[in-house]
Amino acid sequence: MIKVGIVGGTGYTGVELLRILAQHPEARPVMITSRKEAGMPVADMFASLRGHVDLAFSDTATADLTQCDVVFYATPHGVAMADAPGLVAQGVKIIDLAADFRLKDPAMFEQWYKLAHACPELLAEAAYGLPELNRDAIAKARVVGNPGCYPTTMQLGFAPLLKAGLVDASHLIADCKSGVSGAGRKAELGLAFSEVSDNFMAYGVTGHRHHPESIEQLQYLSREPVGLLFTPHLVPMIRGMHSTLYARLKDAARGEDIQELYEIAYRDEPFVDVMPAGSHPDTRSTRASNMMRIAVHRPDGPSSDTVVLLVVQDNLVKGAAGQAIQCMNLMFGMPETMGLMQVPVLP
Amino acid sequence: MIKVGIVGGTGYTGVELLRILAQHPEARPVMITSRKEAGMPVADMFASLRGHVDLAFSDTATADLTQCDVVFYATPHGVAMADAPGLVAQGVKIIDLAADFRLKDPAMFEQWYKLAHACPELLAEAAYGLPELNRDAIAKARVVGNPGCYPTTMQLGFAPLLKAGLVDASHLIADCKSGVSGAGRKAELGLAFSEVSDNFMAYGVTGHRHHPESIEQLQYLSREPVGLLFTPHLVPMIRGMHSTLYARLKDAARGEDIQELYEIAYRDEPFVDVMPAGSHPDTRSTRASNMMRIAVHRPDGPSSDTVVLLVVQDNLVKGAAGQAIQCMNLMFGMPETMGLMQVPVLP
Amino acid sequence: MIKVGIVGGTGYTGVELLRILAQHPEARPVMITSRKEAGMPVADMFASLRGHVDLAFSDTATADLTQCDVVFYATPHGVAMADAPGLVAQGVKIIDLAADFRLKDPAMFEQWYKLAHACPELLAEAAYGLPELNRDAIAKARVVGNPGCYPTTMQLGFAPLLKAGLVDASHLIADCKSGVSGAGRKAELGLAFSEVSDNFMAYGVTGHRHHPESIEQLQYLSREPVGLLFTPHLVPMIRGMHSTLYARLKDAARGEDIQELYEIAYRDEPFVDVMPAGSHPDTRSTRASNMMRIAVHRPDGPSSDTVVLLVVQDNLVKGAAGQAIQCMNLMFGMPETMGLMQVPVLP
Amino acid sequence: MIKVGIVGGTGYTGVELLRILAQHPEARPVMITSRKEAGMPVADMFASLRGHVDLAFSDTATADLTQCDVVFYATPHGVAMADAPGLVAQGVKIIDLAADFRLKDPAMFEQWYKLAHACPELLAEAAYGLPELNRDAIAKARVVGNPGCYPTTMQLGFAPLLKAGLVDASHLIADCKSGVSGAGRKAELGLAFSEVSDNFMAYGVTGHRHHPESIEQLQYLSREPVGLLFTPHLVPMIRGMHSTLYARLKDAARGEDIQELYEIAYRDEPFVDVMPAGSHPDTRSTRASNMMRIAVHRPDGPSSDTVVLLVVQDNLVKGAAGQAIQCMNLMFGMPETMGLMQVPVLP
Repeated sequence: MIKVGIVGGTGYTGVELLRILAQHPEARPVMITSRKEAGMPVADMFASLRGHVDLAFSDTATADLTQCDVVFYATPHGVAMADAPGLVAQGVKIIDLAADFRLKDPAMFEQWYKLAHACPELLAEAAYGLPELNRDAIAKARVVGNPGCYPTTMQLGFAPLLKAGLVDASHLIADCKSGVSGAGRKAELGLAFSEVSDNFMAYGVTGHRHHPESIEQLQYLSREPVGLLFTPHLVPMIRGMHSTLYARLKDAARGEDIQELYEIAYRDEPFVDVMPAGSHPDTRSTRASNMMRIAVHRPDGPSSDTVVLLVVQDNLVKGAAGQAIQCMNLMFGMPETMGLMQVPVLP
Repeated sequence: MIKVGIVGGTGYTGVELLRILAQHPEARPVMITSRKEAGMPVADMFASLRGHVDLAFSDTATADLTQCDVVFYATPHGVAMADAPGLVAQGVKIIDLAADFRLKDPAMFEQWYKLAHACPELLAEAAYGLPELNRDAIAKARVVGNPGCYPTTMQLGFAPLLKAGLVDASHLIADCKSGVSGAGRKAELGLAFSEVSDNFMAYGVTGHRHHPESIEQLQYLSREPVGLLFTPHLVPMIRGMHSTLYARLKDAARGEDIQELYEIAYRDEPFVDVMPAGSHPDTRSTRASNMMRIAVHRPDGPSSDTVVLLVVQDNLVKGAAGQAIQCMNLMFGMPETMGLMQVPVLP
Repeated sequence: MIKVGIVGGTGYTGVELLRILAQHPEARPVMITSRKEAGMPVADMFASLRGHVDLAFSDTATADLTQCDVVFYATPHGVAMADAPGLVAQGVKIIDLAADFRLKDPAMFEQWYKLAHACPELLAEAAYGLPELNRDAIAKARVVGNPGCYPTTMQLGFAPLLKAGLVDASHLIADCKSGVSGAGRKAELGLAFSEVSDNFMAYGVTGHRHHPESIEQLQYLSREPVGLLFTPHLVPMIRGMHSTLYARLKDAARGEDIQELYEIAYRDEPFVDVMPAGSHPDTRSTRASNMMRIAVHRPDGPSSDTVVLLVVQDNLVKGAAGQAIQCMNLMFGMPETMGLMQVPVLP
Repeated sequence: MIKVGIVGGTGYTGVELLRILAQHPEARPVMITSRKEAGMPVADMFASLRGHVDLAFSDTATADLTQCDVVFYATPHGVAMADAPGLVAQGVKIIDLAADFRLKDPAMFEQWYKLAHACPELLAEAAYGLPELNRDAIAKARVVGNPGCYPTTMQLGFAPLLKAGLVDASHLIADCKSGVSGAGRKAELGLAFSEVSDNFMAYGVTGHRHHPESIEQLQYLSREPVGLLFTPHLVPMIRGMHSTLYARLKDAARGEDIQELYEIAYRDEPFVDVMPAGSHPDTRSTRASNMMRIAVHRPDGPSSDTVVLLVVQDNLVKGAAGQAIQCMNLMFGMPETMGLMQVPVLP
């Protein structure tokens, strides 16, 4: 039984990790920390966990995480990289759900997060935690940087096209829509019900932290420089992410069977479901599950040179906590799907 | 492995039965019927079930349900009672999620449902499927009438007070609020998003079918005639039910410790959680789980002779499909909680 | 043209006052203050006001409100009573949308708001701003305490029964449901979309500040001591309030025509609409308008001695800003309905 | 006072026409028809109109519309064109909110609507009802085809770029998001609250009826063949439309000041608000008003050759009923903004 620690357990990714781990057959949360809520039983904060999780929050400052086999960081950026060297030295594995180990380029990290990276050497060895594209590295990693929610959809969405070199990589467009939980569990006016309900808007068109991460990773897949126009939007729903991706086929690629390309690419992936041609997957078809669904469209007429991909996932599961546990399974040699086969909740 | 049939699988209780059964260790859906969708794979209608349920809908008219050990009826009223005698004669157990076996009095059934009862003798032996109040009868039953969602909250809410004879049973008030899924999966204008979203209303104040069922069952618990004022309301949320119950203490009962009464009453119940005194449970703390939570309040001042109970559940689980599977577990001698310990989905 | 000042214009009642005043033919906002946003154009904060309101926020500390004919306080409790004596002395009228002038009993005010009252003599002369019950006093007042949103529904709901002495005033029950905007425009976790959406809960069952105000006012209407059990709930909608009120008829009153009682009581009221018998008004039928609708129900059977009232309003209009402008109209001798006849927005 | 008729008044555009017309100083609804609800007072169906609209539905089959000065058709496609020749001959003007007079090419109409056009000669003279681009023709028209909601955002969004010839017209992308009311007031499963709430999806990617209309009109603005990739999505909100538009600048146009281009283009338009550079307008900033807001973005880096436009409107007002009344004002020589200056409802 793997002993799991969670640092920063009062947010949505924290409670989601607990929801999944509470039923994982081979892992058990043994410690969960909070700066502010030390001593409070976790189930007092999240009534949903009553009877499922008996832990109380430990004080982040004093908790002894070395007793854990693996520690998940569900914290703001900057926390995991401060702890990582010490824990790794003691043989504890790290999965960071924030950005500390996502960007391979420390200068880029510093530019976007306004922090010098605390352990560039660990960053260099850290694996980017997207199993479908990086399975072997994750299995061997001591430190994993779990991808952002948007980048997960963009990478798994564009990957087959970029790997095959079929599209103009310099003009990708990702028009993405996220449920509000993606912004975290925060007392913030812009996230208030009366502000975002019955409302819709774009945000961060002038720059979003998931952009450099996506560019960097897409670059690994492409043989050409990547240009990505990324427009995130806020949807008045709790969970769910829908990315509508546009990529223009090169002239030579017009005749390709893109549907087949995707079916083959993800044929053996337990968590990527390529829908039948012509489908319009909805986000709820993945709600509270680790599944991503992708539909491939080719418009008629003059726009037929553009591939339109519809990609849906639960931003808190495949986009965060579920993917992190998928990585954990790989890192400890367990079946990748263990504890992650929940049926989506519909309606 | 128990072989399960589901008649009328295209509604929300149908898909919810499948969601739960897909992960039940000792039961397996082997047949699911639909009048209109025969031949269609279930997962084509509910993408959430892709990879989890491989069945296609069978034609209700021709499906051979006798191969099942138990059949759930997730149909409109009147269907289960037509089939029940034939199936029971062949040793198939029946759990009806509609009203055919809820009301013990056939005249009352006829008055409210405008149908003569098709098998009053089976009705007489049928068990009312509320395990916490009727466990032994369910365990022995061949036919179970699964309670309505509202009645489940009213009965488990009022039961300790009525059994102890502490309140004026003739003036109970149940001010109940339900998510929209309680009305079923229907093309009905009154259930349209643009009609019920950002909106709130009472309905059926002049008469609701769950009223006679509640009265009949509450009567069994009380030593006095029961008068129940029941006001259902429609909440703009998908799942969830919140019943606010009011009961006036008899003079002699003013000094009782009602909190303790409830804690003792439900101490051993796996699916009824009596919250700490002063709690305000929210519906999401039970979302997608079989748990009910109850909080007990005693107001200050001149209203202190009234007990206020806050009762929450997921109307599709403890209020429908989950409770039905809880009954199934009892009927087949399995642990009552088997397949039903999902952690609620929050947020 | 009446010159209007608004103190504390960054909340929902502030923007709602502006929305209505922007189209009022005889009143014009000339000054709006904010502690934090001095200098910012109002329309930069609320894009909905672009082209309708040209004011910028003035600094609360230095704004000269004496140039106004009337000042609305859309502030936290305690602000209006500090300013009121000085402004009133200069002939400026005050309408407070917070609680400073609601409770007639200064001791009660101090108990619930933890503040000594700053001007008990003005409190003594202040009018309680519920026009339908207090029209003459408002018309003559220099200071008006605008009612709370819940109390508005409870008073107009119970008034005809209490005035006529038909019900047991010591056991009134008000089961009330409010949209989230009632809690104000705040960065508060409990009001976050991901916390309250697709969710429902009661709150403040153990004590809510609208309780003493309601008791005090209901007492004026009744010839008997009032006992009121008040249970507020939070509905996942932006605007709207639905109060379900229960009152038990005295034996001698069982034969009364309650529907007719209400129709007569509100026959000449432009903002109280008694619905046809048997109606279930929904909150959206009042959205963005100053209208309240009331439906009267008498259940069948053993509960027929209880009157059930369904009362709906927009909590930000009739429950706040609209009612305040209704008071202003009265205080300045203008038609009571001026600027307040907007058609509700449906859907 | 202009006498207005409405055919098909039971849908959302019908009730929205009534909401606006009820307060229009120079127009008065005198007749409203319905196939199914003849005889029912309109305010019995829409309680929001109680006290504002006294009409009852007339029978569509027998109503004498010749007494009207103008008739709005808020009906399914095919109704207006059947009536139009007769009414126009009698001097009645027609504004069709369906598609009968939108597509100039009758063959295109027949292809998409599976109906031969009933009066191609009237179609030829009909004006396309987008005042900002077609004001003069509307003012002189006897018949107006009111634009679809999506096309309104696409045309006003792309128009300045296309007119100036700055972008590659053959590869426009419109990623559009609509509130649910855009689909009409219908008993349809796909529009049910429990289906679309807390959910998001694209639809009609393979073909939507607003596509040919948009192409045809955009073609008038451009000097090049237009290629438009149009992806509509369904947002869980009642009202509101957000179109995210992408157009690639020609090499020679990279240095243009696009923000200024838009500010100049719409400087004198009362219903098109070009937001400050860098804005992210939200749909609620236009809720229940006839305003459209547009923000212009130019991304950094390799995507800087693409203009991103964020366009918001209320789909039922500027996207339907409000725009129709704007046309009516023009057709009758009244100020274009008359009756249309409502302040948006926020929150």
